[in-house]
Amino acid sequence: MHVTYEQAQQAIDAAVKKADETGVPSCIAVVDSGANLKNFRRMNGAWVGSIDVAIKKAKTACYFAMPSGEIGKLSQPGGSLYGIEHSNEGLITFPGGLPIVDQEGVLIGAIGVSGGTVENDQLVAQAGVKVVGVCDLPRHPWRT
Amino acid sequence: MHVTYEQAQQAIDAAVKKADETGVPSCIAVVDSGANLKNFRRMNGAWVGSIDVAIKKAKTACYFAMPSGEIGKLSQPGGSLYGIEHSNEGLITFPGGLPIVDQEGVLIGAIGVSGGTVENDQLVAQAGVKVVGVCDLPRHPWRT
Amino acid sequence: MHVTYEQAQQAIDAAVKKADETGVPSCIAVVDSGANLKNFRRMNGAWVGSIDVAIKKAKTACYFAMPSGEIGKLSQPGGSLYGIEHSNEGLITFPGGLPIVDQEGVLIGAIGVSGGTVENDQLVAQAGVKVVGVCDLPRHPWRT
Amino acid sequence: MHVTYEQAQQAIDAAVKKADETGVPSCIAVVDSGANLKNFRRMNGAWVGSIDVAIKKAKTACYFAMPSGEIGKLSQPGGSLYGIEHSNEGLITFPGGLPIVDQEGVLIGAIGVSGGTVENDQLVAQAGVKVVGVCDLPRHPWRT
Repeated sequence: MHVTYEQAQQAIDAAVKKADETGVPSCIAVVDSGANLKNFRRMNGAWVGSIDVAIKKAKTACYFAMPSGEIGKLSQPGGSLYGIEHSNEGLITFPGGLPIVDQEGVLIGAIGVSGGTVENDQLVAQAGVKVVGVCDLPRHPWRT
Repeated sequence: MHVTYEQAQQAIDAAVKKADETGVPSCIAVVDSGANLKNFRRMNGAWVGSIDVAIKKAKTACYFAMPSGEIGKLSQPGGSLYGIEHSNEGLITFPGGLPIVDQEGVLIGAIGVSGGTVENDQLVAQAGVKVVGVCDLPRHPWRT
Repeated sequence: MHVTYEQAQQAIDAAVKKADETGVPSCIAVVDSGANLKNFRRMNGAWVGSIDVAIKKAKTACYFAMPSGEIGKLSQPGGSLYGIEHSNEGLITFPGGLPIVDQEGVLIGAIGVSGGTVENDQLVAQAGVKVVGVCDLPRHPWRT
Repeated sequence: MHVTYEQAQQAIDAAVKKADETGVPSCIAVVDSGANLKNFRRMNGAWVGSIDVAIKKAKTACYFAMPSGEIGKLSQPGGSLYGIEHSNEGLITFPGGLPIVDQEGVLIGAIGVSGGTVENDQLVAQAGVKVVGVCDLPRHPWRT
């Protein structure tokens, strides 16, 4: 199952609104459940470097069906997944990437935000997800 | 000068409308005058392979400030730019990518469309450009 | 919708059987409808260079929901899609890649074969597809 | 010497059986002694991001003829191999990749598993290796 074009637009609209409220120009990416890009927007004044960070956060959250920041907790030096960022042509493992899960607990895509602090990016991403679904999968293995 | 977020949205809205009229689900990308991704949308049912083709068409049109198809005329075997597709991490040199030029003749970005025949892609791209500018630069070297 | 593990195994089993009959050691790849690798096998004696060719054929057929060889007809010098191979990190556009479409006309994945002549690769790919579905989509846009 | 197609199939069959027992959908890759992909399977429900992690674990174990996790011990900040993950187009240096060594002490390939915790991945990889060989080389430099 994939996030639809309409859902992706709604999620990004809500994320842009939140980013505007917080005063942080951001890049926002939505990928489908195959980690392929669906919609993307770069707000005026957002960093050029945030384009790829936002896309990679969305892909990372989709690849492993969990918030990008959760992977980052495990990929620190000495952690069990140290260096996982080298896989899949580059992961971004700090907060700002969230899975999008539908009402039935099925992963339908993910959102990635980059623009300000990771706390702010995470808030913006959450604002995007909550208009189309939730961030949490009922259990692993998830149903796709 | 760069295409604004609002202009990029308008251009993609118009392109999506045209793609809907022609019945061809398409991917549509807008880049700024630095060839960095601004906005992107994949319509429901568009090919997964079109994501990258649309983005590369937009980048190609921006990189050289001319329609992607014009470069393709020069990059054929025996042509003066044969093999230029190997540069810039991959160009797409068939029609569907167009520069976006403002009222003063300044390049502000480019649009790339992939979804159907190259003729259709070109029509969809033109529909996107014309709500925010024109496709033609007054002369080369262009003003940026 | 994605090809299942069981379907991918059946398709590759049938393809390997056909490759054995024709006496051509082959590489056979199956991807899901998001063009992500599902199953892969390299038969004894198959070329090392065929690993990537088989995977790229499968991805190419999935990316554009058509046989890889059909794209190759359009990507010749002077053709409307000349140079499309530069997209998506490299396409392979000669025969041997086929979409896998289910009974309801939905793309569920693709198969790619590399090992011998393109005619033989195509036969092996067809043998794989036909145990789990068909190669033809009812129309574009397809349903996923 | 290379792992045969039949051995690769046996190893993956045993690994899939173990993964099923532990209830963790996994990706399992086998490479030959040249670190070139031999066989690969993605079980239903396995993470899309695990495809590349499993393949890179197998390659890493083969490249240096030791368990991927052993390299990870040396690649931590301050360690003698710090940053080695940047080589060979990306290594994965946490557990789940194991060499496959035949009865005569010769490296014939490697297996890589990704799907759950690194402890579980390691168990699944061990289950795969033990039906076709052992994980330990008698000494370095190894015989290939």
